[in-house]
Amino acid sequence: MLYAEDLAPGREFEFGSMTLSESDIVEFARQWDPLRIHTDLAYAKDGPFGQVIASGLHTLCVFQRMMVDAFGYDIAHKAGHKLELKFLRPVVPGTTLSARCRIQDLTLRPERGDAWLTMHSDVIDQNDHVVLAIGMLGVVLMRPE
Amino acid sequence: MLYAEDLAPGREFEFGSMTLSESDIVEFARQWDPLRIHTDLAYAKDGPFGQVIASGLHTLCVFQRMMVDAFGYDIAHKAGHKLELKFLRPVVPGTTLSARCRIQDLTLRPERGDAWLTMHSDVIDQNDHVVLAIGMLGVVLMRPE
Repeated sequence: MLYAEDLAPGREFEFGSMTLSESDIVEFARQWDPLRIHTDLAYAKDGPFGQVIASGLHTLCVFQRMMVDAFGYDIAHKAGHKLELKFLRPVVPGTTLSARCRIQDLTLRPERGDAWLTMHSDVIDQNDHVVLAIGMLGVVLMRPE
Repeated sequence: MLYAEDLAPGREFEFGSMTLSESDIVEFARQWDPLRIHTDLAYAKDGPFGQVIASGLHTLCVFQRMMVDAFGYDIAHKAGHKLELKFLRPVVPGTTLSARCRIQDLTLRPERGDAWLTMHSDVIDQNDHVVLAIGMLGVVLMRPE
């Protein structure tokens, strides 16, 4: 189990590989973000990208799933408080997403047994382009005495 | 259709009503955020909330779906660029979510035919408590000449 004391600023992680098909993109968006640019193949074909693009929430959900698969049960995570998201590039069908995270800052609160954690993550495509940049402020537990 | 010129700063919108059941919460989290606090009823029963709580991404997805249902095809939306999310309270099974949005700032770019839009949204529960605060910076189209 990783505790706050293990998450030194500067530490980096790379993880995940998930490819989004056209039907993945349409299915997610029909449920959560049913704008035509995400769900309507004919409409999107005549649009700026020539095809549907993934909902930004889909990209975010894929990132979260990849992170939980990589670390979920091994980080003594307490709560996520704040996220800053920058959507930098469209995600088209066939894109393979992975992620890079960097611990930026850690502020221990021994009196509470936890720590504020600031982490920057980039969700990248198979060409190493950043499609989504994520700043996260959360709380992780310190190692029990 | 609402264009940039219609979205005056100070304008407010209220919309949506979606109740999250325990199985909704578990099903979403199994797919996108399979931490035990969201998916494991027995584990969560002994945790700080005495029950599972919704993934923050689930609350965000519900917000987006409510917003698209309310306005999706009526706002000449071009792109969402930046989101700031603050997760303020846990969302437990049986919570009914709705939303309030307020246009904060609008900067027309006539030379590009669009405008930067800054909007603040609160996702609230049935007791009017804010569970998720969302700052959004996006681009909307100006009315075609």
